[in-house]
Amino acid sequence: MAKNSSSDAQADALHKLRHSLAHVLAQAALKLWPGTKITIGPPIDYGCYYDFLFESPISEDDFPALEKEMKKIIHQAQTFRRDELSASNAKKFWKDRQQPFKVELIEDIVKNERVKTVTQYANIGPTGEETFVDLCRGGHVENLKEIPVDAFKIMSVAGAYWRGDEKREQLTRIYVAAFPTKVELEQYLKNREEAAKYDHRVLGREMHLFVLSEIVGPGLPMLAPRGAIIRQELENWIREELKRRGYSFAYTPNIGRADLYKKSGHLDFFRENIFPLLEADDSQYVLKPMNCPHHMEVYKSEPHSYRDLPVRIAEFGTVYRYEKSGQVGGLTRVRGFTQDDAHILMRPDQMQQEIEGILDLSFHIYRTLGFNDFTLRLSLHDPAKRKQYVGSEENWRMAEETLRKALGAMKLSYVEGVGEAAFYGPKIDLIVRDAFSREWQLGTIPQVDYNMPARFHLHYIDEHGEKKQPIMMHRAIFGSFERFIGVLIEHCKGLFPLWLAPVQIAILPVADVHEHAAHDLEARLKKEGIRVVFLDHAESLGKRIREGEQQRIPYLIVLGDREVRERTVTVRNVKTKKQVVVPVEEFVSTIMRDIRERKLEASIGIST
Amino acid sequence: MAKNSSSDAQADALHKLRHSLAHVLAQAALKLWPGTKITIGPPIDYGCYYDFLFESPISEDDFPALEKEMKKIIHQAQTFRRDELSASNAKKFWKDRQQPFKVELIEDIVKNERVKTVTQYANIGPTGEETFVDLCRGGHVENLKEIPVDAFKIMSVAGAYWRGDEKREQLTRIYVAAFPTKVELEQYLKNREEAAKYDHRVLGREMHLFVLSEIVGPGLPMLAPRGAIIRQELENWIREELKRRGYSFAYTPNIGRADLYKKSGHLDFFRENIFPLLEADDSQYVLKPMNCPHHMEVYKSEPHSYRDLPVRIAEFGTVYRYEKSGQVGGLTRVRGFTQDDAHILMRPDQMQQEIEGILDLSFHIYRTLGFNDFTLRLSLHDPAKRKQYVGSEENWRMAEETLRKALGAMKLSYVEGVGEAAFYGPKIDLIVRDAFSREWQLGTIPQVDYNMPARFHLHYIDEHGEKKQPIMMHRAIFGSFERFIGVLIEHCKGLFPLWLAPVQIAILPVADVHEHAAHDLEARLKKEGIRVVFLDHAESLGKRIREGEQQRIPYLIVLGDREVRERTVTVRNVKTKKQVVVPVEEFVSTIMRDIRERKLEASIGIST
Repeated sequence: MAKNSSSDAQADALHKLRHSLAHVLAQAALKLWPGTKITIGPPIDYGCYYDFLFESPISEDDFPALEKEMKKIIHQAQTFRRDELSASNAKKFWKDRQQPFKVELIEDIVKNERVKTVTQYANIGPTGEETFVDLCRGGHVENLKEIPVDAFKIMSVAGAYWRGDEKREQLTRIYVAAFPTKVELEQYLKNREEAAKYDHRVLGREMHLFVLSEIVGPGLPMLAPRGAIIRQELENWIREELKRRGYSFAYTPNIGRADLYKKSGHLDFFRENIFPLLEADDSQYVLKPMNCPHHMEVYKSEPHSYRDLPVRIAEFGTVYRYEKSGQVGGLTRVRGFTQDDAHILMRPDQMQQEIEGILDLSFHIYRTLGFNDFTLRLSLHDPAKRKQYVGSEENWRMAEETLRKALGAMKLSYVEGVGEAAFYGPKIDLIVRDAFSREWQLGTIPQVDYNMPARFHLHYIDEHGEKKQPIMMHRAIFGSFERFIGVLIEHCKGLFPLWLAPVQIAILPVADVHEHAAHDLEARLKKEGIRVVFLDHAESLGKRIREGEQQRIPYLIVLGDREVRERTVTVRNVKTKKQVVVPVEEFVSTIMRDIRERKLEASIGIST
Repeated sequence: MAKNSSSDAQADALHKLRHSLAHVLAQAALKLWPGTKITIGPPIDYGCYYDFLFESPISEDDFPALEKEMKKIIHQAQTFRRDELSASNAKKFWKDRQQPFKVELIEDIVKNERVKTVTQYANIGPTGEETFVDLCRGGHVENLKEIPVDAFKIMSVAGAYWRGDEKREQLTRIYVAAFPTKVELEQYLKNREEAAKYDHRVLGREMHLFVLSEIVGPGLPMLAPRGAIIRQELENWIREELKRRGYSFAYTPNIGRADLYKKSGHLDFFRENIFPLLEADDSQYVLKPMNCPHHMEVYKSEPHSYRDLPVRIAEFGTVYRYEKSGQVGGLTRVRGFTQDDAHILMRPDQMQQEIEGILDLSFHIYRTLGFNDFTLRLSLHDPAKRKQYVGSEENWRMAEETLRKALGAMKLSYVEGVGEAAFYGPKIDLIVRDAFSREWQLGTIPQVDYNMPARFHLHYIDEHGEKKQPIMMHRAIFGSFERFIGVLIEHCKGLFPLWLAPVQIAILPVADVHEHAAHDLEARLKKEGIRVVFLDHAESLGKRIREGEQQRIPYLIVLGDREVRERTVTVRNVKTKKQVVVPVEEFVSTIMRDIRERKLEASIGIST
């Protein structure tokens, strides 16, 4: 069911609060530093920001004064007044105030939206005077006093280019966290502090999961042997699931001729994310940003009857996106990554079933890994702006209705976003919340596409022997393996479930005399395919236990006199820090079962 | 043991025969077409070729005359005379004869080898006259009459650039097949004709294994769903073997900064095989031609103790080589391919064991797939040309001795090739002979490398706490998955062993009434992970059997009244064309075992 309920209203109220607070931030900044040039300041998922061009640099030291000024403005209980100005009056208004960025914005609005007027909002002080004006479309609180002064906090400053263009002015961005209540702000700050401790870049280094190398290049992380194990386990798992669910696979190259991407439209619509082209054989090659064009060619290589559909072509396809080199880092902001990509070609009557299949697979994958807090967002087209979209209105309605039906059949709550669809089709996004309440949009599940099958002239032969164009959906569950692993490292604080842990068991013989038995156990476990390390008695037991904990090995097995005599093992569960004694056979069969069943939580050492 | 025996002498005699025949070919061509410019003509694995610049084009129609002239020359029982000329005299000799390519060759020999004289051979006719002269280092038969006139055949003409450089003259290459006896020539011609029937490009299309797309680009084949199954099975198998043998894995990007390849030396020594560089961020990127530089960075990212070695880093790494676009085709001559690559970093005392491990794995892999005819070639350095090689003479001797020891310990015959080593280390090549007696060098097993660890300053800490440089070996068993699959398709004539077959079983119910039982069997097999197709009774049984045969599905299962009643299946083995009736349970358990054990030959339907 669509959420038209209280949670939507709450989201709307929070949006207004944060947007209004951005006005307050800009007003305060102008008050403290009058020569400042203002630009834009949108709400974000934990508050808002505003980009300024200051006359002299500001720093964290200025935060208390700025916060104080913001609170003062809020206490004045200012209200908002909406003004509609002709473009020329608005331009004059901002020119007079020496705000060149606002003038530029007005020129762009007039040009792009073909309008003759613009809207701006003035803050009105307690005595009716205009205290601040900003160019915006509205969505404010009625009165600034609605903003709780103890529920926001200036977080940080950062550099940002005007319009994200590195050739333009470098601005200063001020981030503010803002929530409806003080308790929520405090929870957010606590989560943030906690999350910083488990930054995947730090854990990745400590656990030897991946390698960033200056000489290889920015945004091109490599998975080291221990990180590669995690990816292989994820790959094996989803490959198994996909085979069971009737997917087939393809292998396609990482490059393709520029003509391929002209045909697909990527060179026109996605150019800024594509690496500079490579000139070879009097031709141009593209380092592939997406796998779809190659999969279209695979589909086309064989004739298809209506009985062969759906055709589900999956690939773990490595793609490259030309992110700015200064903006990449770790596993989550990269230039090269591998998608668990798939393209489904189907008949219209198969669509609902396919959508449900994708949703079902997504929930299965995410829940198995301990992500249980989701938001679903259904991105729809805006019928008022028909010309922005390819494909007939009838097809759009059908696709959107089918997406709704599938969500309904699965009894899922979701939010609708009119006008949020891509030009080529509607989609469902799944947003997961991690252990620190941060939101991540990982996969696309699914994205309908009317554009690509038409551009590639795909067809199938229907039951009457006629050519029909199949419907296509893109979908990726993990999204990018690299990014997903980065998020997962933080979400589980480096303590992976047993089946995913790069090293699953450490064996610690207490002394010399226990090494023989320890090696027997090691051999036994290795034969079963368990990933074991042997920590010999060169170091003290305490030190070895600390080492095992630091490496976040799920189980540390201690073998001493009693264990050898009684054919037991002392198992230390590194996550719970609990220690239990279990018979060897029970230990082996339990971990084998937990691995086979991909259990999220360990079965041994939950309680002593 | 090294083959210093009869087979070596035979190979040498055959080499002399073929090399001499190339002289005969050139002499005959000059006789028939006097203005022809001659270049070079080396022996090849089935005969020899010679590259000419003809004044007017020649074709297959000219073969009879050319062959006749060659036989005439052989019948004249000409002998060879060796002449040593000063470079200037030699140049004058060829200038006078208007043979500019020979003049260019002499200039290069003088420049590259820093010599002042060159050797050439004159053919001497029955009356002592000079009949033909060629610039060469020798290795001829004593008398041309040793060449059997009924054991050679002109095969084809093809275009070839002078020195393989597309900016230079386009020449005409004439290929000649030549063997010691008529019987061997006939066998070769028969094999060749047979092999052409099973060309992997034809079978690949018929069986929907891979896709070549003009718009994706030349030499960039894509594996379609059925071909992808073969690659996945090969990947799963070798991954399992590698894990058992203590390999770890890495995932590295397909690009790297040019600095990385300057450091590795590839940009200096391998430039012509690298795609044009890609300019990004005021930097240059290389589409990776090899995985080694990335693996060096992975090794370096952690400290290593002597106890951690050997470190074996494997990756299914996709690499790109800039082959000429006109020279690529199918799966065997490509620009983009995926290697089952690995790099082993080890202590000197671990080398023999590692070499034996690689050889053992290689033989296991090749034999399982039905390749049983091997030649091993040990490529050694030439101590007389020490300056050509990096690394100390002591290290070279040690490495070569260790390679010999490993071959000896495994009781393997091999041929030694002095001067055949790469500049960075000695290696063993494994040459396999396929079902049509064609030789393929697929993998490298192994290649010692003294260069890369030094360039990347790799080290480990030895037992005395001192930094030591590890020895490194490259190795790839399949070599390239694409090329290997191409060779395998032809070797097994499209009839893959059950475990590798894209579709393993086709189920053919005789009529309507058998469909229910047939679907039950289908579901049963699918649940076990067997790849099944259902060929319903819309077509006649005969037609469906022919379809199954054409798709080269190993087993066709017929279900009729008797089978349903008796709980049996009629199994048609498509390879043997034999048909047997077996109980359902026996059929299922037998195919499950054959798949699990990766049996080369089917167990059912060997005899009726």
